[in-house]
Amino acid sequence: MRRSELFIKTRKQAPSDEESRNAQLLIRAGFVHKEMAGVYSYLPMGKIVIDNISRIIREEMNAVGGNEVLMSTIQRKEPWEASGRWDDKVVDAWFKTKLANGTEVGIGWSHEEPIVSMLKDHINSYKDLPIYPYQIQTKFRNELRAKSGLLRGREFLMKDMYSFSRSHREHDQFYEKVAGAYMKIYDRMGFSGITYRTFASGGSFSRFSDEFQVLSHVGEDTIYIDEKMKIAVNKEVTDQETLNHLKLDMGQLKEEKAVEVGNIFSLGTKYSDALGLKFTDEKGQQQPPIMGCYGIGVSRLMGLIAEHFADDKGLVWPENVAPYQVYLVGVGDSEQVKQAADEIYGNLTESGVSIMYDDRDERPGEKFADADLIGIPYRVVVSEKSLAAGGCELKKRTSSGTEVLSKDQLAERLKIPLQA
Amino acid sequence: MRRSELFIKTRKQAPSDEESRNAQLLIRAGFVHKEMAGVYSYLPMGKIVIDNISRIIREEMNAVGGNEVLMSTIQRKEPWEASGRWDDKVVDAWFKTKLANGTEVGIGWSHEEPIVSMLKDHINSYKDLPIYPYQIQTKFRNELRAKSGLLRGREFLMKDMYSFSRSHREHDQFYEKVAGAYMKIYDRMGFSGITYRTFASGGSFSRFSDEFQVLSHVGEDTIYIDEKMKIAVNKEVTDQETLNHLKLDMGQLKEEKAVEVGNIFSLGTKYSDALGLKFTDEKGQQQPPIMGCYGIGVSRLMGLIAEHFADDKGLVWPENVAPYQVYLVGVGDSEQVKQAADEIYGNLTESGVSIMYDDRDERPGEKFADADLIGIPYRVVVSEKSLAAGGCELKKRTSSGTEVLSKDQLAERLKIPLQA
Repeated sequence: MRRSELFIKTRKQAPSDEESRNAQLLIRAGFVHKEMAGVYSYLPMGKIVIDNISRIIREEMNAVGGNEVLMSTIQRKEPWEASGRWDDKVVDAWFKTKLANGTEVGIGWSHEEPIVSMLKDHINSYKDLPIYPYQIQTKFRNELRAKSGLLRGREFLMKDMYSFSRSHREHDQFYEKVAGAYMKIYDRMGFSGITYRTFASGGSFSRFSDEFQVLSHVGEDTIYIDEKMKIAVNKEVTDQETLNHLKLDMGQLKEEKAVEVGNIFSLGTKYSDALGLKFTDEKGQQQPPIMGCYGIGVSRLMGLIAEHFADDKGLVWPENVAPYQVYLVGVGDSEQVKQAADEIYGNLTESGVSIMYDDRDERPGEKFADADLIGIPYRVVVSEKSLAAGGCELKKRTSSGTEVLSKDQLAERLKIPLQA
Repeated sequence: MRRSELFIKTRKQAPSDEESRNAQLLIRAGFVHKEMAGVYSYLPMGKIVIDNISRIIREEMNAVGGNEVLMSTIQRKEPWEASGRWDDKVVDAWFKTKLANGTEVGIGWSHEEPIVSMLKDHINSYKDLPIYPYQIQTKFRNELRAKSGLLRGREFLMKDMYSFSRSHREHDQFYEKVAGAYMKIYDRMGFSGITYRTFASGGSFSRFSDEFQVLSHVGEDTIYIDEKMKIAVNKEVTDQETLNHLKLDMGQLKEEKAVEVGNIFSLGTKYSDALGLKFTDEKGQQQPPIMGCYGIGVSRLMGLIAEHFADDKGLVWPENVAPYQVYLVGVGDSEQVKQAADEIYGNLTESGVSIMYDDRDERPGEKFADADLIGIPYRVVVSEKSLAAGGCELKKRTSSGTEVLSKDQLAERLKIPLQA
């Protein structure tokens, strides 16, 4: 895309009322617009990043057998009353509103109840199970304070999967499969080697749930990691009983700051029972499916990626989620430079490299600062100097060194397939 | 996909409280689930249809220079107060709710105000214009009655584009460009030759707005068409003054039932003025951009396509929006049939044809009825009889004739690129 056709403007200063570093950066670089605390709109490059993150998650959910659906935002209260989660004293994050006829309805903050309710029309027999519906959808939570930017929104994008299995054994197998898929997702987003599956509080259905925690200076949570076993325990549940149970030794654990990027829960039959979802098993008996739920905050991940990798010059997007792979700048007014830059833009676009061509009438320093602030992985500069040296200058966002490449060498270099 | 892995079940009867034919069909065929009147969730095949419709719209919006964004659902009231559209007496379709701190907020039913408000951070100069942000997003309207299924929802998916131009001339040019893009969209969805650009009430900013109306027995609106000029006038504005203005002769017009599938409005400077959005023109003067808005109901289109093309056996999806191109059925228990069907499934999948393989342990009649109800464009049947005749049997959903093709002939036939 040509920068002149993109309507966003970067800024030197974040709005004074924005306290969170991820939102400050994303606003300054023109990825999001703040509507109010915890509510952001996505500008074109922000939308591309959201789509890239969603695509990775979708691929991994499909790979474990997920079926994508899209549940409604507006919620009837009956299923939530049946499970005991309609009352504001039980769930204090509800937004509620009314239909024109006075009927009270909720605005979805999670979807266990409606999905179980819906499946009563589709599940009868053991032959219908197991199933793994999931969605990538906007959720709403009425947070009292929302000071963490995209890390904790009042309105946010989330992937939520629900599993319905015929036995605890079948449930446990799928649960482990999703845990593996989650690790792949975080690897693909640039968190390879620093993501820990972390024992956390399990609620009423199992001793533990699993959080996925990324070691990060952004850290909201404290976890204890066992570097050899590559697992961790959330500080909240790190008592002697837990350590004994997990056969961990406090002396071997290392305290770290981390950010939760996903969680998976075993739900047992709580919602199946509450809403009367049953299947007939192979012996002709009626049974409630065993459920699990599996969440990843899509916009939260965007916020974390922004804040975790940023440096003093701005954002640093991993290649797999970057809005564009290349930021192209022509330096100077010479016709030769313009022609060479136009040609590189055309060639790379044609060969499928996504590229932002800064064709604006601005000083080069301004363009270089924008390339850094926006955080595109590769910067390509064409100047009279680079042409004299044989081509254009390539610089990675994450290194200070540059190298001069011919057009062919550049095309070859950038055609390298992105990490899977 | 294998049907055994899809968790939906078709039904003989629609729910008794569902009055609308499009929703009855879509529920029976397992595309949507009714949450309440005017609120539907999308099951896996429904989600694919929504994605197919969205992709076509997105391609045509990008082709006219659109920039995709994603605005928030939660709305601050201030911009809406500035334009005079916060008051329930002015806009009676609002859903409103409150933040935990008591602040009243709206649930978005349209996005003129927030998008104009947002652009104040990004537009300064004539060099920044024109721009065409758009989004495909869930909207909420508190309809008193919602009896038309997906044609008029309380929660629905919509594409809304907004244009910001520097002059009326620039606005008019873009407005015509979008009108052309809209006709392409409806052509691609199977409404070629029956879609009329229709003069309708223009509100305060121009004499007319333009509706896009599809001639259909589903018709909610009455329009008068001029078959030679290929334009129409909505009955609401068909008076002598209008006819004179448009140089139309009532005697030449034909009354038709039609369904609105999109509308485009010139907004003048109403919202730019109300919210103080300005740019500096080439003479250094401050000017408000000229605005237009361009809507297409994505879920509404899905409902119309469902109801318009359906026959007494069920849905009939046009190829470009169908969830799958081929419904594959193996008849009988013979190992030879199963092998041949498996092979066709593998080969077609590999060559990029999207295919639903009904591998369930059901009677063939049941599977054929499902193929028709679900409305997949091509049905392929493998049986001992078809194998003896040289291959498999191909039938189009829209014709009663069948033909026997070898595996190679079938692959060749189905590789025909879909209509653009």
